[in-house]
Amino acid sequence: MKTPWEYRYAQRTQRMESSAIRELLKYTEKPDIISFAGGLPAPDVFPVEEFSAACERVLREHGAMALQYSTTEGYLPLREMITRHSARYGIKITPENVLITSGSQQALDLLGKILIDPGDRILVESPTYLAALQAWKAYGAEFISVPMDDDGMNTDYLEEALRAGPKFIYALPNFQNPTGVTLSMERRRKLLELADQYGVPIVEDDPYGQLRYDGDHLPSIVVLDSQFRDDGTACYRGNVIYLSTFSKTLAPGLRLGWVIAPPEVIGKLVQAKQGADLHTATFNQFVAYEVSRAGFLDRHIQLIREVYGRRRDLMLAAMDRHFPAEVNWTYPQGGLFLWGTLPSYMDAKDLLKTCLDKKVAFVPGEPFHPTGGGKNTMRINFSNATHEEIQVGIERLGSAIKEKLARQVA
Amino acid sequence: MKTPWEYRYAQRTQRMESSAIRELLKYTEKPDIISFAGGLPAPDVFPVEEFSAACERVLREHGAMALQYSTTEGYLPLREMITRHSARYGIKITPENVLITSGSQQALDLLGKILIDPGDRILVESPTYLAALQAWKAYGAEFISVPMDDDGMNTDYLEEALRAGPKFIYALPNFQNPTGVTLSMERRRKLLELADQYGVPIVEDDPYGQLRYDGDHLPSIVVLDSQFRDDGTACYRGNVIYLSTFSKTLAPGLRLGWVIAPPEVIGKLVQAKQGADLHTATFNQFVAYEVSRAGFLDRHIQLIREVYGRRRDLMLAAMDRHFPAEVNWTYPQGGLFLWGTLPSYMDAKDLLKTCLDKKVAFVPGEPFHPTGGGKNTMRINFSNATHEEIQVGIERLGSAIKEKLARQVA
Repeated sequence: MKTPWEYRYAQRTQRMESSAIRELLKYTEKPDIISFAGGLPAPDVFPVEEFSAACERVLREHGAMALQYSTTEGYLPLREMITRHSARYGIKITPENVLITSGSQQALDLLGKILIDPGDRILVESPTYLAALQAWKAYGAEFISVPMDDDGMNTDYLEEALRAGPKFIYALPNFQNPTGVTLSMERRRKLLELADQYGVPIVEDDPYGQLRYDGDHLPSIVVLDSQFRDDGTACYRGNVIYLSTFSKTLAPGLRLGWVIAPPEVIGKLVQAKQGADLHTATFNQFVAYEVSRAGFLDRHIQLIREVYGRRRDLMLAAMDRHFPAEVNWTYPQGGLFLWGTLPSYMDAKDLLKTCLDKKVAFVPGEPFHPTGGGKNTMRINFSNATHEEIQVGIERLGSAIKEKLARQVA
Repeated sequence: MKTPWEYRYAQRTQRMESSAIRELLKYTEKPDIISFAGGLPAPDVFPVEEFSAACERVLREHGAMALQYSTTEGYLPLREMITRHSARYGIKITPENVLITSGSQQALDLLGKILIDPGDRILVESPTYLAALQAWKAYGAEFISVPMDDDGMNTDYLEEALRAGPKFIYALPNFQNPTGVTLSMERRRKLLELADQYGVPIVEDDPYGQLRYDGDHLPSIVVLDSQFRDDGTACYRGNVIYLSTFSKTLAPGLRLGWVIAPPEVIGKLVQAKQGADLHTATFNQFVAYEVSRAGFLDRHIQLIREVYGRRRDLMLAAMDRHFPAEVNWTYPQGGLFLWGTLPSYMDAKDLLKTCLDKKVAFVPGEPFHPTGGGKNTMRINFSNATHEEIQVGIERLGSAIKEKLARQVA
């Protein structure tokens, strides 16, 4: 049945693609498949009891106020908590620098809305976070990419990319989605130096920064960009917009993220957010604040680190045992993902088909590459699988790869 | 302090204006002002106890699942509930026609994203809902307006407006924000007939439809547009996209709205929503479903009707007593607002200044007019004030108007 709507879609609608990740999440719904495809946090570490107590307390103490319309900027005590928490990581800001968003994804969308004119170029890592590409394509963005290696964005290629005149740089320095790789200290400085030289600002996306399982915390780009006062303390300079989220530390089903930006940018984002959804759910902000208080969030993050760290170790050990020498993979120091590279002649999409017969799944890496390539790469999630699923799933994955290799040789 | 961002805003950012309503909401925060300016539901009827019980039950029965990522389309039992509920009002659909949005405002934004190219014309009522204008201006929309009178959009002017080639018609037929006026049955049919004749589809925004305090329910435009089967039952035809929300019946702080549209449009909206915020908060959808079950929502709407209906009656009676003959106002059969018209030489913005001195506030009507005019109009909210505030506030407002009139005459 035809409706008049289908002749009326905006041009940008042609640029929207159904997210490959979303489509692939459908595999995870089949209960007999061991899926490393999703990017889901482990539900067994969600603090369900604490949420229940917090909901009760919020409604008892704040009552109707927690259910009423609220300001677009977000719940002030939550913004103050984020301000205090950021200071411990060296990000010295005030609550005026903080906007609460409906998940970090909304921050990407609002940045697209206020910054991207059709045809604008955005400098991104290759591979990079798929849903950022998707959000910005809807505003007509084009992409310039800089390749990744084991030390993150390869800054040797950065200057050439900057010469193409990007509007901003999008970087995921910690345990990047999809590769799990961390930008080295040397390259963080190089990135900042070149960005400053070419006058191009940076959007730093840091959903996993607190989920480090070994090695030392590296200062965020936003911290390195700070000016240092005479007393040696840093203050926020504003050339870097920083994004983070409660999705990986508390629960993604609340849809709570935040942006740190100069007040003038926050002002523009607030205008855009008024049109987009008026404000982030009041109740969720009250509950997140209530759950996080009294040091609970810190203790909880410690628990997540232990659980995910063990899963990562187990997966890496299983890959050592079951993957043939022709496959390489990253060693993530944190986050949710690792990244496999198959021999160049092997197509990860074909491998996935074999894998689904063997009841195991991952995400083929090609869609994460904004300017093509990566057919032989794969993203593997280790946060949302039991120890047994990791053992069995990686063995199945290894045997599928070996089969493919044998067929190639034969 | 200059940052590189301010040289980088997108062109559409120039078209974004800080919402006049948002700015005016600041007045409501001063505790000594009796404010009829906001559009807030009355917090004293929020079902706080029921929410508390629902949160507890959701987390006990569904646990981590209620805190996890979920599908973009929305929680299926909630979509099924909306489907059942819509059927009672004659809207015969399936859950595939329903998308849950982060408040009705997000539905407006996503419709803008999939439908509006820069320069596209949208046919709207004048005055109309301010935040729809704001959401669509960000996509480069221009507006063609049809004047309102006491029977809603004046369809005598509709054909001329349709000849200007609008992409769609935006109509708020029930207890419109800002005027409180309801589109008559005759004009509903006329609107549909002309829309069909010119092949222009309709977006019907119905946040208040269930909040009727007297008179009979009139069928929604989406229902009138349905084809009738041989057995006399209606089925959804798809020329009308219908929007509604839980903000006025449960609580706005949850940010839960929905769109009813043909599956192909839902598919496009889902793609746009993936980029915008992945999905609406899982927990909120579970809790809204849990609260609404077992007939609670129906009983609660009955309570809201009684409370708001009394406040409307009280306000109308107070206006009869305190407003001079030179002022006219609408008689809303439902919703949250009524609309005052001052003598044409009087500016409602000036009146507001006088009113603020007298500690009473309303919203000047001019910004609700997409193509100019309305300087002498005002929106007055009756849902969020106590009986005493209504008595005292309307007396103050009346005396401010009389002062202005006296000065004009003198």
